[in-house]
Amino acid sequence: MPEQPQPLVGVVMGSKSDLEWGQQVSRYLQELGIPHESRILSAHRTPVEAAHYAQSAAERGLAVIIAIAGLAAHLPGVLAAYTWLPVIGLPLAGGPLRGQDALYAMVQMPPGVPVATVGLDNPRNAAVLAAQILAVRHSDVRARLLQWRREQTESVRLADRQLQQSSATAVPEPRP
Amino acid sequence: MPEQPQPLVGVVMGSKSDLEWGQQVSRYLQELGIPHESRILSAHRTPVEAAHYAQSAAERGLAVIIAIAGLAAHLPGVLAAYTWLPVIGLPLAGGPLRGQDALYAMVQMPPGVPVATVGLDNPRNAAVLAAQILAVRHSDVRARLLQWRREQTESVRLADRQLQQSSATAVPEPRP
Amino acid sequence: MPEQPQPLVGVVMGSKSDLEWGQQVSRYLQELGIPHESRILSAHRTPVEAAHYAQSAAERGLAVIIAIAGLAAHLPGVLAAYTWLPVIGLPLAGGPLRGQDALYAMVQMPPGVPVATVGLDNPRNAAVLAAQILAVRHSDVRARLLQWRREQTESVRLADRQLQQSSATAVPEPRP
Amino acid sequence: MPEQPQPLVGVVMGSKSDLEWGQQVSRYLQELGIPHESRILSAHRTPVEAAHYAQSAAERGLAVIIAIAGLAAHLPGVLAAYTWLPVIGLPLAGGPLRGQDALYAMVQMPPGVPVATVGLDNPRNAAVLAAQILAVRHSDVRARLLQWRREQTESVRLADRQLQQSSATAVPEPRP
Amino acid sequence: MPEQPQPLVGVVMGSKSDLEWGQQVSRYLQELGIPHESRILSAHRTPVEAAHYAQSAAERGLAVIIAIAGLAAHLPGVLAAYTWLPVIGLPLAGGPLRGQDALYAMVQMPPGVPVATVGLDNPRNAAVLAAQILAVRHSDVRARLLQWRREQTESVRLADRQLQQSSATAVPEPRP
Amino acid sequence: MPEQPQPLVGVVMGSKSDLEWGQQVSRYLQELGIPHESRILSAHRTPVEAAHYAQSAAERGLAVIIAIAGLAAHLPGVLAAYTWLPVIGLPLAGGPLRGQDALYAMVQMPPGVPVATVGLDNPRNAAVLAAQILAVRHSDVRARLLQWRREQTESVRLADRQLQQSSATAVPEPRP
Amino acid sequence: MPEQPQPLVGVVMGSKSDLEWGQQVSRYLQELGIPHESRILSAHRTPVEAAHYAQSAAERGLAVIIAIAGLAAHLPGVLAAYTWLPVIGLPLAGGPLRGQDALYAMVQMPPGVPVATVGLDNPRNAAVLAAQILAVRHSDVRARLLQWRREQTESVRLADRQLQQSSATAVPEPRP
Amino acid sequence: MPEQPQPLVGVVMGSKSDLEWGQQVSRYLQELGIPHESRILSAHRTPVEAAHYAQSAAERGLAVIIAIAGLAAHLPGVLAAYTWLPVIGLPLAGGPLRGQDALYAMVQMPPGVPVATVGLDNPRNAAVLAAQILAVRHSDVRARLLQWRREQTESVRLADRQLQQSSATAVPEPRP
Repeated sequence: MPEQPQPLVGVVMGSKSDLEWGQQVSRYLQELGIPHESRILSAHRTPVEAAHYAQSAAERGLAVIIAIAGLAAHLPGVLAAYTWLPVIGLPLAGGPLRGQDALYAMVQMPPGVPVATVGLDNPRNAAVLAAQILAVRHSDVRARLLQWRREQTESVRLADRQLQQSSATAVPEPRP
Repeated sequence: MPEQPQPLVGVVMGSKSDLEWGQQVSRYLQELGIPHESRILSAHRTPVEAAHYAQSAAERGLAVIIAIAGLAAHLPGVLAAYTWLPVIGLPLAGGPLRGQDALYAMVQMPPGVPVATVGLDNPRNAAVLAAQILAVRHSDVRARLLQWRREQTESVRLADRQLQQSSATAVPEPRP
Repeated sequence: MPEQPQPLVGVVMGSKSDLEWGQQVSRYLQELGIPHESRILSAHRTPVEAAHYAQSAAERGLAVIIAIAGLAAHLPGVLAAYTWLPVIGLPLAGGPLRGQDALYAMVQMPPGVPVATVGLDNPRNAAVLAAQILAVRHSDVRARLLQWRREQTESVRLADRQLQQSSATAVPEPRP
Repeated sequence: MPEQPQPLVGVVMGSKSDLEWGQQVSRYLQELGIPHESRILSAHRTPVEAAHYAQSAAERGLAVIIAIAGLAAHLPGVLAAYTWLPVIGLPLAGGPLRGQDALYAMVQMPPGVPVATVGLDNPRNAAVLAAQILAVRHSDVRARLLQWRREQTESVRLADRQLQQSSATAVPEPRP
Repeated sequence: MPEQPQPLVGVVMGSKSDLEWGQQVSRYLQELGIPHESRILSAHRTPVEAAHYAQSAAERGLAVIIAIAGLAAHLPGVLAAYTWLPVIGLPLAGGPLRGQDALYAMVQMPPGVPVATVGLDNPRNAAVLAAQILAVRHSDVRARLLQWRREQTESVRLADRQLQQSSATAVPEPRP
Repeated sequence: MPEQPQPLVGVVMGSKSDLEWGQQVSRYLQELGIPHESRILSAHRTPVEAAHYAQSAAERGLAVIIAIAGLAAHLPGVLAAYTWLPVIGLPLAGGPLRGQDALYAMVQMPPGVPVATVGLDNPRNAAVLAAQILAVRHSDVRARLLQWRREQTESVRLADRQLQQSSATAVPEPRP
Repeated sequence: MPEQPQPLVGVVMGSKSDLEWGQQVSRYLQELGIPHESRILSAHRTPVEAAHYAQSAAERGLAVIIAIAGLAAHLPGVLAAYTWLPVIGLPLAGGPLRGQDALYAMVQMPPGVPVATVGLDNPRNAAVLAAQILAVRHSDVRARLLQWRREQTESVRLADRQLQQSSATAVPEPRP
Repeated sequence: MPEQPQPLVGVVMGSKSDLEWGQQVSRYLQELGIPHESRILSAHRTPVEAAHYAQSAAERGLAVIIAIAGLAAHLPGVLAAYTWLPVIGLPLAGGPLRGQDALYAMVQMPPGVPVATVGLDNPRNAAVLAAQILAVRHSDVRARLLQWRREQTESVRLADRQLQQSSATAVPEPRP
């Protein structure tokens, strides 16, 4: 087995039930070629482990932490309390309040301890934001990020061209 | 293929995933006999194309733009920034916040750059509003709009008559 | 007294308590040189007058109606039921629910009878949207609208230049 | 066919799509032995019919109107504008905003024109409230209402007794 | 002291701090010539008195109860549990959630025990709804209600005429 | 049948339709070895029984009441009005407003009569909170509570270890 | 200085700016004769101290913790992660979202780690809930709690009597 | 005048009316010793300038953009469309919807174009997040950030000690 590269991003879930979301973040980070590690650490059930993880994150070489949680989503804020690294919060919508609780619990942090919050159930944006933060220092991440954005733009342009062609033929004359 | 009439309305979607909504708007515009064109232009992924589309819309003969988007629905506002044509915003509800995000992002535009916002997931109203705007100048659109409203009224009257007839026979005597 | 020009826009308030908002709409329409008339017509207290006003609006030469209301703001929808003219709804926030009631009651109209809703407490956008609708047909309105937008743009540019100049001198060296 | 008794309650729906809810209200009124009539009248698509219905309701012997609507639910308010009879509003939740729009559009009526609003998707309460209003004058309705409430109470008591019995046997000893 | 007429409406507040709202309801009932009584009865602090009041209300000749409360406004529902009379709920907005709590706690009653809910901080509508309920049976209340509505309509008409006159003179020519 | 131990917790549902939630609370209490009883008592349909239950709860040896309800969830507040025991409120989300009504109706109690509210649809937390309240006095409950928390912690740690192992092998090299 | 009694309740604020609310809780606890201690411990700025405080709370003799916080109010949840004592959460409304953020961040805790949440800006209920929890074991607290509730009931009864007397004289005859 | 250091952060406001918030961000950045520049660029009134600013930001040496806006706050999203730099969004609460519109319009960006959103009216967190992003690469920023956090922690500790001392003397004996 080839040696793993040093992870730059820590992807932390608050519960085993968030695993699928963590895997999506992981997949998007891989697409952008960003080495990372994934952990399940609960702000409320394994608070000592969560605190220790955040405290040691910078010295272990991480540059960004992504924390994923739903409901009263304290995890990113609790991690942010123990590290100076930027913490990205990914709020999940899977509860009766459809994520409004998770969104508020992440974004409304008190002055001095921010969480960089992205959209509800939006793992892509958690990964891309991590890439943007890394891209200033890591030219290879920047290159892949720019390449990915070009592809994204191209894909919208292609869909637009296809729509224009199909409309041109499909739209009938207005009724006389 | 017969020549397409000059489009009066531009129907713009922010993403390929909004295509179905755009097709519904298109269908309702056709019912009202309004020539139009459909485009996929993203405020965030193809911003240059979106800006160019809005900038050139008036001189290309468009009189109204309908912009369809969900989530943080910037598209109608971004188009409105580049044109003096009225922009109708159709907010979509298909996310965890059920369109409250899209509605606010369209209707709460800053003073001076309005978006004419219609109801969530309501393509009919986007099309009818476009027809109402055009109807002052285009007597044929006005005629078709009035005809369509008469049919709509007749359809409610018919349902009411059917209900009255069925009730008259179906409702039993109150219990003694 | 010189003869009033034929009004193109009807500005309708639902209550005397909305008068101040109607006056603001009126002022902005004047800035854009748009002849208009102002009325107090209640969907619930003078429904017959409101219905008659909307029914006769088109034949009296109006091209757009702006309806202003708060709380369960039925006025624009009730007017829209009696006319094919586009009705712009201006929702007001002055109640305990801060206008969420008025916004929903305007924008969530049933399919077929749209209200072109603008932002809460935003009379400028009601007036500008009316101007945009008129501008296609009325080149003088278009000219004034474009002129007003240029001034608006210039005003932001000016504020930006002033900020850049003041920052350049005011920002001290970062702490060593 | 025996002659229909004089209806005391008018059940009005805003659209054919609300028919099922109207039938539920109708069924509950029948259970309480209250003669009634059902109509489809749209505040926006057949406003003239709706106004006429409300205007003539009292002289035709109705004592209460129940109006059912969703989205920007203007119907009960529009009817209330044309009659001095109490109007009960039944807001429906079937849209992206889950009825918050319909609830606000009914309950937040301006001073002087109330709508007696009951819970979202709660046809039972619309019917029972109508019965309560009628019960002061109509001793037979009062008798049936009281009987129905006794049955309702008995049904809860029965469920409670069954639960107590099943718990008594089913709950195991706490773990030692 | 002349003998008080038999009260037809009971106005119940949940707390001394709601006294001002109760006085407004009382004033509007007096305007409509409706004899009534006012009480402070708390669903949570004097629940026995509240239950007894509701239980004896009908036999004491009351025909309607108006219950006023804020926050988790249980009062109207608790009264409704002990009487078959219609209970009108007046929700108050004076808390951090601006009455959304009080509104939901009144309107969302379970099937079978409705509260006729009116708008937030809207004592006028609580009184008018009580008058509408009484008006079927009490022709004098009906007469005063109709008279009051005519005055209300006249007042809007007057304001409209004044506005039209002032506009006619005040609105300057559009800018050339 | 062995004698039931004296119940320490009363689990009260507002309706037969909440039975499943009550059974979940019951199951979690059993896991924690807490003797309890379950009842269906409606604040609105059997208010006398509900009041009597709360009034006699302390003298019958109960130490905590858990009340489960949805919509305008008055039950816990009504019980709290008749007892000095702590009342835990478990709000249910199963309605159009997704439990926001139930949550507000429980948590926003007036000063002096609190309801200890836990999360929407969260029977586990109702049971654990009851255990925490009992644990100060009952060392056996405390022991089982601590044991259960250790198991919960262990379960998160195990999931974390499994994730780390699977990631170590599964994550491919970043793209070159 | 007389020796302080052993505190039974810990009152914890998340920030110096919450001091006034902590003092109110303290005052209400004193009224109920409950010895307590007050601390400022931040979940994000002094997380180590907060964790240590909660971990040692039970062995130092505390029986309940009250945690006060606004915005993304993590404090009660973070304390609850480190202790088996019941944690009462008092959410504060003093931000743009008027406490909806704080309420959700407290009440929506994940299964297994509850926070007993009371109303927004309601220090009285935090103190009374603590007293209710203590009252089972501490007969003197129970006695004072019952006494306080009697006084509260008496105060409502007195206000009701005063209102009845003033109404009896003040309400004029209905208009003839 | 000494030469300005190369700015690392661009602080962009959407309107002159947001100037005070921009100055606060600027002040906090200065406290952390981060060179920056401030601009007023409107997504809707000077869209060309805004696009150009974002497009050229990276090559001019900026590493982070902070965008400040209220209402339908498109600014950060529009800037993010034109740059690969991380864009921090600071939503403002100063409108009828108290910033819920601005928050949603920033955080709910479509997949691929994130905005790192911080709390409403929280300029401190916008500045600190920028510092955290810069701190990985800039050891001097990291040092100042850590120093600032230590001071922040010390300030909470000091307030806690003062509270403990004042409580020790001020809290009277519980009532006997």
